[in-house]
Amino acid sequence: MATRVAVAGASGYAGGEVLRLLLGHPGVEIGALTANSSAGRRLGELQPHLLPLADRVLEPTTTEVLTGHDVVFLALPHGQSAAVAEELGEEVLVIDCGADFRLREAAAWERFYGTPHAGTWPYGLPELPGARDALRGARRIAVPGCYPTAVSLALAPAHAAGLVEPEAVIVAASGTSGGGKALKPHLLGSEVMGSMSPYGVGGVHRHTPEIVQNLSAAAGEPVTVSFTPTLAPMPRGILATCTAKARPGVTADALRETYEKATAGEPYYHLLPEGRWPSTAAVLGSNAVQLQTALDEDAGRVLVIAAVDNLTKGTAGGAVQSMNIALGLPEETGLSAVGIAP
Amino acid sequence: MATRVAVAGASGYAGGEVLRLLLGHPGVEIGALTANSSAGRRLGELQPHLLPLADRVLEPTTTEVLTGHDVVFLALPHGQSAAVAEELGEEVLVIDCGADFRLREAAAWERFYGTPHAGTWPYGLPELPGARDALRGARRIAVPGCYPTAVSLALAPAHAAGLVEPEAVIVAASGTSGGGKALKPHLLGSEVMGSMSPYGVGGVHRHTPEIVQNLSAAAGEPVTVSFTPTLAPMPRGILATCTAKARPGVTADALRETYEKATAGEPYYHLLPEGRWPSTAAVLGSNAVQLQTALDEDAGRVLVIAAVDNLTKGTAGGAVQSMNIALGLPEETGLSAVGIAP
Amino acid sequence: MATRVAVAGASGYAGGEVLRLLLGHPGVEIGALTANSSAGRRLGELQPHLLPLADRVLEPTTTEVLTGHDVVFLALPHGQSAAVAEELGEEVLVIDCGADFRLREAAAWERFYGTPHAGTWPYGLPELPGARDALRGARRIAVPGCYPTAVSLALAPAHAAGLVEPEAVIVAASGTSGGGKALKPHLLGSEVMGSMSPYGVGGVHRHTPEIVQNLSAAAGEPVTVSFTPTLAPMPRGILATCTAKARPGVTADALRETYEKATAGEPYYHLLPEGRWPSTAAVLGSNAVQLQTALDEDAGRVLVIAAVDNLTKGTAGGAVQSMNIALGLPEETGLSAVGIAP
Amino acid sequence: MATRVAVAGASGYAGGEVLRLLLGHPGVEIGALTANSSAGRRLGELQPHLLPLADRVLEPTTTEVLTGHDVVFLALPHGQSAAVAEELGEEVLVIDCGADFRLREAAAWERFYGTPHAGTWPYGLPELPGARDALRGARRIAVPGCYPTAVSLALAPAHAAGLVEPEAVIVAASGTSGGGKALKPHLLGSEVMGSMSPYGVGGVHRHTPEIVQNLSAAAGEPVTVSFTPTLAPMPRGILATCTAKARPGVTADALRETYEKATAGEPYYHLLPEGRWPSTAAVLGSNAVQLQTALDEDAGRVLVIAAVDNLTKGTAGGAVQSMNIALGLPEETGLSAVGIAP
Repeated sequence: MATRVAVAGASGYAGGEVLRLLLGHPGVEIGALTANSSAGRRLGELQPHLLPLADRVLEPTTTEVLTGHDVVFLALPHGQSAAVAEELGEEVLVIDCGADFRLREAAAWERFYGTPHAGTWPYGLPELPGARDALRGARRIAVPGCYPTAVSLALAPAHAAGLVEPEAVIVAASGTSGGGKALKPHLLGSEVMGSMSPYGVGGVHRHTPEIVQNLSAAAGEPVTVSFTPTLAPMPRGILATCTAKARPGVTADALRETYEKATAGEPYYHLLPEGRWPSTAAVLGSNAVQLQTALDEDAGRVLVIAAVDNLTKGTAGGAVQSMNIALGLPEETGLSAVGIAP
Repeated sequence: MATRVAVAGASGYAGGEVLRLLLGHPGVEIGALTANSSAGRRLGELQPHLLPLADRVLEPTTTEVLTGHDVVFLALPHGQSAAVAEELGEEVLVIDCGADFRLREAAAWERFYGTPHAGTWPYGLPELPGARDALRGARRIAVPGCYPTAVSLALAPAHAAGLVEPEAVIVAASGTSGGGKALKPHLLGSEVMGSMSPYGVGGVHRHTPEIVQNLSAAAGEPVTVSFTPTLAPMPRGILATCTAKARPGVTADALRETYEKATAGEPYYHLLPEGRWPSTAAVLGSNAVQLQTALDEDAGRVLVIAAVDNLTKGTAGGAVQSMNIALGLPEETGLSAVGIAP
Repeated sequence: MATRVAVAGASGYAGGEVLRLLLGHPGVEIGALTANSSAGRRLGELQPHLLPLADRVLEPTTTEVLTGHDVVFLALPHGQSAAVAEELGEEVLVIDCGADFRLREAAAWERFYGTPHAGTWPYGLPELPGARDALRGARRIAVPGCYPTAVSLALAPAHAAGLVEPEAVIVAASGTSGGGKALKPHLLGSEVMGSMSPYGVGGVHRHTPEIVQNLSAAAGEPVTVSFTPTLAPMPRGILATCTAKARPGVTADALRETYEKATAGEPYYHLLPEGRWPSTAAVLGSNAVQLQTALDEDAGRVLVIAAVDNLTKGTAGGAVQSMNIALGLPEETGLSAVGIAP
Repeated sequence: MATRVAVAGASGYAGGEVLRLLLGHPGVEIGALTANSSAGRRLGELQPHLLPLADRVLEPTTTEVLTGHDVVFLALPHGQSAAVAEELGEEVLVIDCGADFRLREAAAWERFYGTPHAGTWPYGLPELPGARDALRGARRIAVPGCYPTAVSLALAPAHAAGLVEPEAVIVAASGTSGGGKALKPHLLGSEVMGSMSPYGVGGVHRHTPEIVQNLSAAAGEPVTVSFTPTLAPMPRGILATCTAKARPGVTADALRETYEKATAGEPYYHLLPEGRWPSTAAVLGSNAVQLQTALDEDAGRVLVIAAVDNLTKGTAGGAVQSMNIALGLPEETGLSAVGIAP
């Protein structure tokens, strides 16, 4: 019998991408689709690319509407997931694409979000050590942020292997869909096309504590993180340039071997052959993360560059991958490592 | 047993898109991949989005290499398909993504291509009246051009129903992948980003006679066509704005009904609800064509606007769809009506 | 003594472009800058490219603030110009970048705008026959719409010379700045990048009656116009593909000669050499309109393609050019025919 | 009497931008325009935005052609400038937009370029301490690289003031025109649109030693530099995110004051008000560099972000600014701090 799935927040970019993937997932049946201000409208008006669901009417995001599904994806603004999840039974698999349950430390949450901490759920980044096991059978999953997905998969192996000092300097470029569908002047096409600009500079971006958490866990000691996100003139994709000070004696070969081991057997975590570099185009619409490493001996730094699609592996793909693991389905069901290029 | 498929011209955009779709097609096994100047290189260097095939080595495009497959896709420069096809057995399904076998009239071919006409194969646009039947069991298929796909599906119903005079004025915008991967100055990113420009103006574009052929067949009389292609700053997609003079008495309702009938039951041929217009973003990577119609009473003209992905429905998707029909597989196998947006 | 200039609506794209040009105009002094909801903010927050004016504070759009200038540019939402202009003295040069005073026929205004007609001012498209004379000494000027600028300069000569039937089919692609800075979902970067889409299809776009007016004046008889605007993934630029049925006996040479005459001696109205086609990139930020013509003998149609920058020649450049003429300054002061490319 | 200027390499992007600026420079007369493979063609075919020079015929780059000018701009491939400059008289002002004369240390040149070092010319970045004086009356000028322009202006003040340790981690995004007009597959529009990708990772980009030279000069001690360039989907612009470890006790106020002093009185070197961040759109086509600073106390790092137009301030604008200084003209002649936005 098909798994019955609801999506709360189906009008936004994250919810739309969850639905795009579910439409290609053979084991699920798409149930209720909910929204807030768009409730009552047809999905086709808001997500014209989801043709098979065009006539579906968006319902309000209520417990009543969401009850009766095996899986509920939450793609809601930060701070709204806890209340919804609480009303759903413990046997329901709730997968939160928002930030509410990602952080382990309440203090970090409160500092960056300014509200009480809701809790911590198993973390939907299966490629991190131990994460896949924690997801099996889970009924609550916190999907990582898009930047933390790229950055953690880029640097965690180097930190875990002790190749680098406990610090990281990260500059990442994201497509505009990372900013969501909200009507903000700086997200207008006229403003973003032909332009690169930074935002959340100086450690204030809300993904910073999540990156710190993941890299510190990998390193086994606190890692300081300088993280600068930039907005790039493209709808999708993250390119994360991640560097850390190399520990004495580290070689390019040792670096490469570390990443070969980390990615071995992984369906979506891919170290490129030497001489080739990731691009966001190559992972568009796919669940793959493409990586390459370098050792800059003059600067004494390790570099790892990662490309992901912020909406797929960075959000909805990671969510579906985690769902598959939680439900005991083959992990790759409904997902692809193949990008849409050019 | 899986159908064994070869792709000749696997290094280009059309060949790459055929492979992207075949990677998601459950009934095929991907055999030989060939190229010309890139023979000997690994596919991963040229098509970094096709991760599962990254280590495949491109072979030269020879009869020897292509022999032994059930299906051979040809994604070669114009004029090269006949020689290759001749050497392949009659039982092999040969699907030509090039122009060589699209035109019925030798004179039209010779005028626009300047070489002897190679012949005419069943035409891979199943949505045209009669086309699907001609494809069943076929062993040679000519895949339509990307512009003719969009334009013919836009205007053929109006001509067939006698709603319009036997003339058409068409302006279409295409993404740059329509120009292929050849290194031409006007296709450089620095030149195309932020810019719209026309090309092949005045009826000289090689897709013109194919459009004339399709619309004339639909109308049952010769249709004169003014076709202007333009290059848009996007990698993929065609938006075709198609107009023709309305015959007296035509109403918007009659127009809409005509298209409702033409698209009824079709998996990829989609008339949008009133009030919504096609966009290329909504069909990115999908096999869908999205349509909308209008009657401009002041101007006395019918308008039909179509959006397709030039590489998917406009080339590789149409090719795979035709393959499915020819082989007796379910027509939608390995194809999707869902686009990648935003 | 410098001409003292105010700009009402300085926070928007049209107002910003007027200011960009005025900053390079040696004969003017920039006075009051006004806005509606942004009054009280510094210009640097809203127009970060206008560095020399970054600290200017936007004032409310009131008669009091605007009084005391020699020239007032109005870049206001449609329908607001009449009330403002009325309060300014007759000796003040008022240049309206909005639509209010463009149309001659009240019925056309009312049909497309749904409000009472405010009147008709001298039309700021100096390249049209007679227009330059009407602008000399004028104290009220209606700046043409961006599409009508491109389309009228493309087709008026052919209609005036009787080369074509009194009909026109026009498809134009515009950058997103044509849609203004208003926060509309379809103007988000995530929606427009990588996408082409039509809007205002079927003769309902408000620039249609203005095009009809200009072409009919040129033809000396009513011209029917099919006009389809499309939104292109670029911030600026209009590419207008304009066609009309050729009258019997028209030759390509006659067509070219007509445009050589029409553009002779014009500083910004430029017919390209044969074999070259306009692109919006080549006119970015410039006041030039680049044109090329073709005769499609098979289709029996004349084609004229025009490229303009919608904000420069299509709005603010045309406005400054008209100001120069009205004030008796050299017409090219502060303007350039040189684009910013690539 | 007008200064007579020649441009060698007028067919490329750097040469085209030099010409764009010279066309707006009141004190110069544009003389010979030369090219290599494009010699004999009209400029209009290659630089369609430079309308006033469209009929100029490109001549071969020979001493004969270049002799007889007061100023010669060289926009040639690396390694060709020395031979050309040698043949021009010492009284001729030769301004090299290439790399040949930028580096002071022969060893650095040889390591990164693999050819013998041609020498060192006065460095055309007037905003660096001492640089303006060295340019006055100079007859040979080395224009900085585009990345070193942005990065040096971003970090030199912090290093000079001792606010940071002698190290820097820099990630910069550049528009594709930085890669020139050469026909390379990765610069095709189909490849770059919608994509971010790194290149020259690990300290191998040729601008690295130039950055090291400038920052070390500012710091008064050797600075180690980790520099990662990335290619962004836009034609122009560089956004450089530059960080260095803060020295103990550094405050955000001290940091800001340092930059206020460094930029005081400078026409193009601009520190934005607090709370606003640079964007490449805001400097498009302008000679401005826009900066903002931050102190990340958690990470213990200073951040300075700079936006420039790689072709204007990053190449041709810096060249013209340096020319003005060398010739004793007002430094701002023919240049603007106003960008073209949106």
